[in-house]
Amino acid sequence: MTNNGALSGLVVLDLTRVLAGPYCTMLFADMGANIIKIEEPEKGDDTRQYAPIYNGESVYFININRNKRGITLNLKNDKAKALFLDMVKKADIVVENYRPGTMEKLGLGYEQLKEVNPGIIYASISGFGHTGRYKDRPGYDIIAQAMSGLMSTTGWPGGEPTRTGTALSDVLGGLSAAIGILSAVYHRRENGVGQKIDVALVDATVSALEIINMIYLVEGRIPRRIGNRYEANYPYDTFHAMDGVVVIGAANEKLWKLLCEAMERSDLSEDPRFDNVRNRVAHHEILKEIVEEWTKTKKVEWLVETLLAKGVPAAPIYDIAQVVNDPHISKDREMFVELEHPVAGQLRVTGNHIKFSGTPTSVRTPSPLLGQHNEEVFSQWMGLSKARIEELRASGAI
Amino acid sequence: MTNNGALSGLVVLDLTRVLAGPYCTMLFADMGANIIKIEEPEKGDDTRQYAPIYNGESVYFININRNKRGITLNLKNDKAKALFLDMVKKADIVVENYRPGTMEKLGLGYEQLKEVNPGIIYASISGFGHTGRYKDRPGYDIIAQAMSGLMSTTGWPGGEPTRTGTALSDVLGGLSAAIGILSAVYHRRENGVGQKIDVALVDATVSALEIINMIYLVEGRIPRRIGNRYEANYPYDTFHAMDGVVVIGAANEKLWKLLCEAMERSDLSEDPRFDNVRNRVAHHEILKEIVEEWTKTKKVEWLVETLLAKGVPAAPIYDIAQVVNDPHISKDREMFVELEHPVAGQLRVTGNHIKFSGTPTSVRTPSPLLGQHNEEVFSQWMGLSKARIEELRASGAI
Repeated sequence: MTNNGALSGLVVLDLTRVLAGPYCTMLFADMGANIIKIEEPEKGDDTRQYAPIYNGESVYFININRNKRGITLNLKNDKAKALFLDMVKKADIVVENYRPGTMEKLGLGYEQLKEVNPGIIYASISGFGHTGRYKDRPGYDIIAQAMSGLMSTTGWPGGEPTRTGTALSDVLGGLSAAIGILSAVYHRRENGVGQKIDVALVDATVSALEIINMIYLVEGRIPRRIGNRYEANYPYDTFHAMDGVVVIGAANEKLWKLLCEAMERSDLSEDPRFDNVRNRVAHHEILKEIVEEWTKTKKVEWLVETLLAKGVPAAPIYDIAQVVNDPHISKDREMFVELEHPVAGQLRVTGNHIKFSGTPTSVRTPSPLLGQHNEEVFSQWMGLSKARIEELRASGAI
Repeated sequence: MTNNGALSGLVVLDLTRVLAGPYCTMLFADMGANIIKIEEPEKGDDTRQYAPIYNGESVYFININRNKRGITLNLKNDKAKALFLDMVKKADIVVENYRPGTMEKLGLGYEQLKEVNPGIIYASISGFGHTGRYKDRPGYDIIAQAMSGLMSTTGWPGGEPTRTGTALSDVLGGLSAAIGILSAVYHRRENGVGQKIDVALVDATVSALEIINMIYLVEGRIPRRIGNRYEANYPYDTFHAMDGVVVIGAANEKLWKLLCEAMERSDLSEDPRFDNVRNRVAHHEILKEIVEEWTKTKKVEWLVETLLAKGVPAAPIYDIAQVVNDPHISKDREMFVELEHPVAGQLRVTGNHIKFSGTPTSVRTPSPLLGQHNEEVFSQWMGLSKARIEELRASGAI
């Protein structure tokens, strides 16, 4: 498949492992950037061992490393370091998610890299960031979900603090690093000077908590776990139906009135307890009872169809099979796409979710085997001779 | 405060309301872009009415609309439409999160806008996207959390499907639109041609589900709610302590061995049930019991300190007060910053989480009052006379 992506031409040296960094560079790869994934010889990215496994290969790894080329470099080896610095001279972007200080210890921190290429844009993703008193703490997604306040506000009154069902802080960190990098690329057009972007998983998740932080900042009230409702709006919640659970989001005056009509309860839209959004939030308990009196006598499918016909946002709660088999999500929006992997074989991965009219994203190549593109990158791109590559291999540099 | 942001110079016409769109343009605004927020006269953005309220003003609105200028335009009015098209000629980017079709009905869809400015980059954020069979369905965050599969995988075995404690799909949509826009800006440098970016909240959340989708795609197993553990790794979970809950993320071989040392259970690192990551996931139930035997006899603070001293990722679960008052998050990382609002007065908002070495983000100005910058934008930027502005006002266009 040809690469007509928006970022074709950008060269990224990708030192990232696990999820946050690879998710960031996956987005770039899908948009056509030239991603050179650099892994430790023999061992490689930790996620090469992670479930789920398919025909002996990790599809955790395959999914988020498609469209990248893979090389190996032992960055503790001096020959590998020198080669890496030569690569930095020809690259636009370096991305890494090592623990802060690791690259500096290797002599490959931003201060070192910008000496060989002042235009380089260097992005770090870490648990707590490269500054501040916790910078040396190790950070994974679950650590950031815990310390950002997200887990304390997800779940049910009286229940346990709850981790979101996906590695959300990693994804937020990866998306945020992508924004920082692309903004620095934009800025660089003026004077050719790069910079360092420092994204912490904790910070990215704190930012995502938007209104939740604001409640404490202005009211002094600590937001707690409140189930599925939202602090800013009501009725905007899950409601029990005859055969399951339905989501209704009547998030403004017009939608509230339409919901009252759908329930054949026009009296409610005149009720002073519910006459504006703040009053509906204040009376959410009784309002939930009222809406559930109606939903409990109906089936989810009927409720969703009836409410959508009225123009009221409503949805079933899909399990993953329903998501994957939904024709809108899977087919119309191309959120699951075919990929042929040299070892795992034919499988489907998650498609790119950013849809461009002029420069469509694409899944063109499978994730690399460990060191698969050593020859290609070192000889074709870096101009090393076969003998030189062999020497690097023999010395343990690659 | 001066604006040295990476995006200074970029002009954004911001038609967005509520959260997903305003969060996207907030990031741009913090990075120095010139954001002109366009609201409906008299009514304005729905979130101007949303809690929490402080001195009569919505801090929901204040937080995510800082650094933007605000004007009013009634886009159903022909004079306002003509003025908007004149503004498009001078802008780089248009962002909107109306229901799909709304801009086309107004005669202001991408096809129309590119006729007056072929370089315009037009980004849409919607529940289900601008293509596909569900495109006309209304979409809010909770709808996307439900239909992406996220709610079905968040929460506890036997418990209810659970909404994440923040409007996560909105945030993912906003971040993803920002990436699409900046990539299109990069691409435009070549030939000056813009394009349309179409981001759906459902798609953005499906993408964020990474490994969760892959489990179904390759194993045919439907991932369910599994509490706080992770499908790909163990021990990586919450554990009960004497006085609360602690998070431990021993996510690779080295960290697993260090955890065994911390627990004074070196025997475990030799145990074949736990000798690689997949075996540890398979035996997560017994492993949780073993780790909890140890954590239950200790206090959270002691556990976190001891594990961090060993190099094992560990954390307490912060409530929002602890987040806001944490010196690393609040002070070192500047995640809460002061803002002076003309009506609400002095307050703190959430800082920007993308840290740049060369072009720092800043919170320079408060959110606009409704139509606050009409004169400034229409006269200074668009060159309209006072009489013309008065005429627009009299006709209900602004």
